[in-house]
Amino acid sequence: MKSFQSSSSEEPMDQLILANIALHIGIGAAEADYFLSLLEHKTLKRKEVLLSEGQTCHYINYVAQGCLRMYTTDDSGREHIQMFAPENWWCTDLLGFHTNTAATHTIDALEDTDVLQLSYQNLEKLYLKVPKFERFFRVLFQNGFIMYQNRITTELALPADQKYETFKKLYPGLQQRITQKHIAAYLGITPVFLSMLRKKPDGIY
Amino acid sequence: MKSFQSSSSEEPMDQLILANIALHIGIGAAEADYFLSLLEHKTLKRKEVLLSEGQTCHYINYVAQGCLRMYTTDDSGREHIQMFAPENWWCTDLLGFHTNTAATHTIDALEDTDVLQLSYQNLEKLYLKVPKFERFFRVLFQNGFIMYQNRITTELALPADQKYETFKKLYPGLQQRITQKHIAAYLGITPVFLSMLRKKPDGIY
Repeated sequence: MKSFQSSSSEEPMDQLILANIALHIGIGAAEADYFLSLLEHKTLKRKEVLLSEGQTCHYINYVAQGCLRMYTTDDSGREHIQMFAPENWWCTDLLGFHTNTAATHTIDALEDTDVLQLSYQNLEKLYLKVPKFERFFRVLFQNGFIMYQNRITTELALPADQKYETFKKLYPGLQQRITQKHIAAYLGITPVFLSMLRKKPDGIY
Repeated sequence: MKSFQSSSSEEPMDQLILANIALHIGIGAAEADYFLSLLEHKTLKRKEVLLSEGQTCHYINYVAQGCLRMYTTDDSGREHIQMFAPENWWCTDLLGFHTNTAATHTIDALEDTDVLQLSYQNLEKLYLKVPKFERFFRVLFQNGFIMYQNRITTELALPADQKYETFKKLYPGLQQRITQKHIAAYLGITPVFLSMLRKKPDGIY
């Protein structure tokens, strides 16, 4: 039966992103086909850069497999990680993407990664042709807003051990996939301090 | 002529919120009337609390006049200000509002403040009856997401003097309306340090 046949190597990724869309809106087969026709597939090797600070940010990216990180580098050369984007996350430098200005973040791959990309022009077309996607991205940005609201509260008010616990809840299992250096750069602490936190027995907090 | 008559004391506020809506979507007179019928008006005195941490957050609030602040208090009793909401800003504990769970922030008024409130139930009704509001709130949350993305980058990567400059750009003129104590609690620095920053001549950064 057709639904059990794989007509192309990208079909599994198509199914992943459609399942992601189905979390928030219901779309018909023709709408799904139109949405899929707007996507571009990009494969990144580990450490490959998807977007560099200063470049124009043309795409919003859905991670089908692997993990992206988005970060800034301060004047002293220190990297500060804004977010990780493992499977099923969306990631972009949103200000650059929506205002067609130079990106203020760099995005690269922490593992070999497959992304499905939606360009700004295609996203605008999608909103016009299938307005239900306004709802999808309303919920997506709403959830992102909530995530950042919590991140700021965490950043401002919590000590490092509780920041690490919050990180583990937001990104289940990710601490086994990425380096201590990257987790430390996300938490704003040194790798040595993170190592001390990780050695504490579970359940101490 | 009717358009020059004020039929109620709330009409100016209605016009303010409709102008805010018109920034992102076009709505007709009947849609505008329906939207206005869903709003509740609340007046707050300076220092009055609109939402306390731990309470259920029933409303998203549009500030027609005055200024709100949203903050958390850490275990040592120190206040951390997440955001200010002067005129034309929207403010809520978004996680609590959308999940009907206890608010993790307190919202109070820094000046005598007029807000127009939209309850969760009324917002859901609005999305169903006038789907264009999906677009309005998509853009609102998108802008909020961008604001927080920048706030996190600022928080992680910039020194205090640049954080203060960023605050002044985000909230033009607000530094003349609110106390140094509150600005310091937003920046995560002491009022004494903020005072030093404010005494530096303009243009030094």
